[in-house]
Amino acid sequence: MKTLKLCFIGFGNVGQKVSALLLEKQDWLRETFDTDVIVTGIAGRSKGSLVDPAGLDLRESLSQVQTTGRFDPASPAAFEGTPEEMMAASRADVLVEMSTLSIRDGLPAADYIRYALRRGMHVITANKGPEAWYYKELKELAEQAGRQFLYETIVLDGTPTFNLMTETLHGNTISGITGILNGTSNYVLKLLEEGKSYDEAIKAAQDIGLAEADPSMDIDGWDGAAKICAMANILMDASITPDDVEVESVRSVTAEKLADAKQRGMCIKYICRAEQTEDGVKVSVKPEELPREHAYNSVNGTSAVFTLYTDLAGELTIIQTDPGLLQTAYGIYSDLITLLKRI
Amino acid sequence: MKTLKLCFIGFGNVGQKVSALLLEKQDWLRETFDTDVIVTGIAGRSKGSLVDPAGLDLRESLSQVQTTGRFDPASPAAFEGTPEEMMAASRADVLVEMSTLSIRDGLPAADYIRYALRRGMHVITANKGPEAWYYKELKELAEQAGRQFLYETIVLDGTPTFNLMTETLHGNTISGITGILNGTSNYVLKLLEEGKSYDEAIKAAQDIGLAEADPSMDIDGWDGAAKICAMANILMDASITPDDVEVESVRSVTAEKLADAKQRGMCIKYICRAEQTEDGVKVSVKPEELPREHAYNSVNGTSAVFTLYTDLAGELTIIQTDPGLLQTAYGIYSDLITLLKRI
Repeated sequence: MKTLKLCFIGFGNVGQKVSALLLEKQDWLRETFDTDVIVTGIAGRSKGSLVDPAGLDLRESLSQVQTTGRFDPASPAAFEGTPEEMMAASRADVLVEMSTLSIRDGLPAADYIRYALRRGMHVITANKGPEAWYYKELKELAEQAGRQFLYETIVLDGTPTFNLMTETLHGNTISGITGILNGTSNYVLKLLEEGKSYDEAIKAAQDIGLAEADPSMDIDGWDGAAKICAMANILMDASITPDDVEVESVRSVTAEKLADAKQRGMCIKYICRAEQTEDGVKVSVKPEELPREHAYNSVNGTSAVFTLYTDLAGELTIIQTDPGLLQTAYGIYSDLITLLKRI
Repeated sequence: MKTLKLCFIGFGNVGQKVSALLLEKQDWLRETFDTDVIVTGIAGRSKGSLVDPAGLDLRESLSQVQTTGRFDPASPAAFEGTPEEMMAASRADVLVEMSTLSIRDGLPAADYIRYALRRGMHVITANKGPEAWYYKELKELAEQAGRQFLYETIVLDGTPTFNLMTETLHGNTISGITGILNGTSNYVLKLLEEGKSYDEAIKAAQDIGLAEADPSMDIDGWDGAAKICAMANILMDASITPDDVEVESVRSVTAEKLADAKQRGMCIKYICRAEQTEDGVKVSVKPEELPREHAYNSVNGTSAVFTLYTDLAGELTIIQTDPGLLQTAYGIYSDLITLLKRI
């Protein structure tokens, strides 16, 4: 039986759900890959940090956080130090990077990933910032180190997006991608159409846990820009950053425009788009009109969709319906399985 | 440089398109897999057969068929004999099985596949009959022989369906599948809704090459039954045959029912459905009502769709838009790549 040591940066909702899934699947992983997957370090923000190179009691650690809101500071595994120091002390084989995202610059996530790859660790990340800002650099770093750099969950959670290309659409070239990739703005548009005001719609999105306290990253298109940018860099070999994306806020859509579109049998959706052109890959995030009976008009709530335009497999559309936290955790777990299959 | 020898049974539209794709991708396959992929036997029906264990001139053979409608009977490679005799004489490593389908019993395709697996050949098939009728047996035969048995193109052509599960949705259990899997019946429904009669609609489907001369396999649900049966057997570990599928012909849908549904904001689609129940997997093919703004209502013409209900990745819907012959050929070509990756 081999052992694979993971360390986590971030232990919020996603980190906790990943832990619960790991505990549930531990036996299956042992049987399937002849590998004991253990966690040897966790760097929380407000919850404290833990390190034990021989393996933490993940069930107990999870229970502490869910009961008291933090790890027990009196635990022998309690650790004081930066996330980098935690990574070093944990002697982990794999960094599972789930830190709080800054879409504006991909930091500090990208720095954690650089540090881990340079130390010879594999990296699984839940953050889209690093792929939107520094994909080529991180990919090369991973290749030089002979380590895996995996990120399936950053777009449509556990829905195969990047694996769809690398594992199944062998030999295809992608000439374009479209998608509804941001749930909050999509939800807000639907409520506007139903007669709500912007403020009411944003409040409703916050109430169901979709929108952040500051919803401008979603509403003004930056989240969508980071996602389509990451997809273009990874799937279309583009070399762009969110600064290259033509972004129009969804605030430009008014109740009147929505009513007028409906009148004409159309709907307005907030579309992310990447297109191969003679001048390279052009990327935009903006409201676009579509027929009401278009598949994208069925994508509401937390659901999301993307379409790949390929040379051999044709036009493929993938809809993820009503995902929750389990689907995000599954995205990370599926990267772990990809890693176990490859190493 | 390794050599991989293929033989073909069937050289109709699909076989010819596969040949053209192989010729186009020959250099890429050499570079990517360090393997020379050659064709050493072809058993046509009306076109004659060819065998040369050292490799046929595929470009010349394809050109002969496209110019004269058959292989040159005076060619040194011209071969008289059954498809089984062609397989034996070709000394191929892989059977690419593209014979004319009998959905009613999966024959003769299943017999060709059995023969090839027993001789130690890998099998790629374009036929859904064998998986609908004999999946477990053929799978075990392949496992015992240590050979690959691949069939990506049988549902939604080159769209990842079976690879989606085996290569990307690791660790998921599928509790249900729905889909619009038969283009002809879907096309006929749309034309009925637009006011055409059944006969006019079927004629139109034939005119665009969608429906066979005898469209009853499509219209009465047998094609859909074979496809959902194959999916249930392969993806849900069911052990059923098309005889177990509850089938209602799409002829039960009238123009009046379609108009009435539309009036109520609904549409009628011809839905294939497989559900895990306490009594095993239940499968049906019948007309069902859906909201007009459902994603399935955007699936028209030759397009198709399926939805997987999974325990970890949630609900995923895949739409293939406007596929053509290239997409069917790509499905077979993608199996060839899967094979090259695995061996």
